[in-house]
Amino acid sequence: MDSIKIFAPATVANVSCGFDALGLAINAVGDEMIFTKTETKGVSISKIEGAELTFDSHKNAASVVAWAMLDKIKPDFGVTIALYKKVKPGSGLGSSASSSAGAAFAMNKLLGNPFSNLELTEFARLGEKAACGSPIADNVAAAIYGGFILVKSYDPLEIVKLPVPEELWVTVIHPQIEIKTEDARNVLQPTVTVANAVKQSANLAGLISGLYTDNYKLISRSLEDVIAEPYRKKLIPHFDDIKNDGLKAGALGVGISGSGPTLFALSKGEKIAKNVAESMRTIYSKTTIDFNIYVSKVNLNGCEIIE
Amino acid sequence: MDSIKIFAPATVANVSCGFDALGLAINAVGDEMIFTKTETKGVSISKIEGAELTFDSHKNAASVVAWAMLDKIKPDFGVTIALYKKVKPGSGLGSSASSSAGAAFAMNKLLGNPFSNLELTEFARLGEKAACGSPIADNVAAAIYGGFILVKSYDPLEIVKLPVPEELWVTVIHPQIEIKTEDARNVLQPTVTVANAVKQSANLAGLISGLYTDNYKLISRSLEDVIAEPYRKKLIPHFDDIKNDGLKAGALGVGISGSGPTLFALSKGEKIAKNVAESMRTIYSKTTIDFNIYVSKVNLNGCEIIE
Repeated sequence: MDSIKIFAPATVANVSCGFDALGLAINAVGDEMIFTKTETKGVSISKIEGAELTFDSHKNAASVVAWAMLDKIKPDFGVTIALYKKVKPGSGLGSSASSSAGAAFAMNKLLGNPFSNLELTEFARLGEKAACGSPIADNVAAAIYGGFILVKSYDPLEIVKLPVPEELWVTVIHPQIEIKTEDARNVLQPTVTVANAVKQSANLAGLISGLYTDNYKLISRSLEDVIAEPYRKKLIPHFDDIKNDGLKAGALGVGISGSGPTLFALSKGEKIAKNVAESMRTIYSKTTIDFNIYVSKVNLNGCEIIE
Repeated sequence: MDSIKIFAPATVANVSCGFDALGLAINAVGDEMIFTKTETKGVSISKIEGAELTFDSHKNAASVVAWAMLDKIKPDFGVTIALYKKVKPGSGLGSSASSSAGAAFAMNKLLGNPFSNLELTEFARLGEKAACGSPIADNVAAAIYGGFILVKSYDPLEIVKLPVPEELWVTVIHPQIEIKTEDARNVLQPTVTVANAVKQSANLAGLISGLYTDNYKLISRSLEDVIAEPYRKKLIPHFDDIKNDGLKAGALGVGISGSGPTLFALSKGEKIAKNVAESMRTIYSKTTIDFNIYVSKVNLNGCEIIE
């Protein structure tokens, strides 16, 4: 195998009650990337379409991951990467994670599959660190494992792949406004009351139980975030309208994807997910803000080879 | 049915990462209570053995629950209660919860089963409020539902019954020292860092996943409490020794039952649970503190009729 084209799914992190612990991959959008072996050792970037990102292979998220994996295995070849960015940077849909996870996945294939998914997640975190300053694992793990994942712990890194109920659909709306990651972080409080910590914890426990038992009502009642949403929602125009109308349209829950500005909804079945999309479209159509909407099944397999 | 004798299991609340959200019933110890219909309406207490508790039926936890249920249904009979307390008040093993849950369960039988387990839990909370000042649900729900329960929310009250892996055993040691509930509450911090809230939450999510998948190793790695244990352990002599030696003896985890002083351990299989008991016995035998140790399977059915 000298060249492969791969798909790396976009991801929704946090998922309301799972602040900094849950991630979810979606089918409807993801980066495409071509990795080609070269005689010249090391990593180069031949093309970047769809976003303004650095060609410096020691700074770009995808190539940073590729470098780390080549340094570990030291094969007798190098790699050049063509990036077709479909997940917009700054969207809150795990743009850098898609590139980082895709790079880890593709490099593993070119190297003959020496690494486990957990090890690939560790490599992909280096891309997150290069892109965002912080080696967070929720988006990259979701993109690599697929489905719903729990970041059980960081030290040591432990990822738990959770079951996904058959009829679970995701609706996302990406309003094209900029929220600086720094602002999204700074707006949070450094502490929470024990009562709210317990509430968040019990909701996450309820969501996990709902996923294991296909209990959509329990999932719905658990999709509540008392840690980040009350503060971050102020950064996103029309958040309350989107949430209220989404729930009226039948969504199980509506919340902020990662640190925003993308909002996500979970629904039981495609029909409701599309109704939720329409309710979101109606609200943002009345504004001057450009937006994209995706309706998607949960991506179950993570990154995959497409050519 | 004019008279029944019932068993109401002792319970372990919190279970490390499930602070204020998880409860667990055990087989080895529980209150026994006899409820007998009387022609005189209202509730009386005919006997209390095993503890110094009030005979005032408007203050005793069991009779407070019985009063509330009679007031709701208004049957043409009253009830007298004989209490054989086996779960010591102040032990941290849900002593008042055992009486309260047992009363709710027994009264429901005498009344012809008009109430669901959720409604029985609501009634039993009145007993908790009478005994402890706070209508907490984790112990009473565990005693009523049996097994592992999650208090998903209080408003509205929602209880999720969790699966229990076949080989899960519990060891508890009750050192006979007094910890005032007030002290156990006051020693806690009113807030936690977001990082610790996330850690606790991810551990609870890991534990729930482990229960659904019989993954004892995941259960073990999840039994960590960063909210209450670091502060409350100071109130319990030899906590660190009990925990360290329990883990060395093979326990999946060791922590504080409720607000203490009882300590619990979960283990895979009876043999390890007994070894853990021995490790606990060795430590407390060197002190002047009296103690009881129980080794028990998880109680799966909650309260039951025994005569």
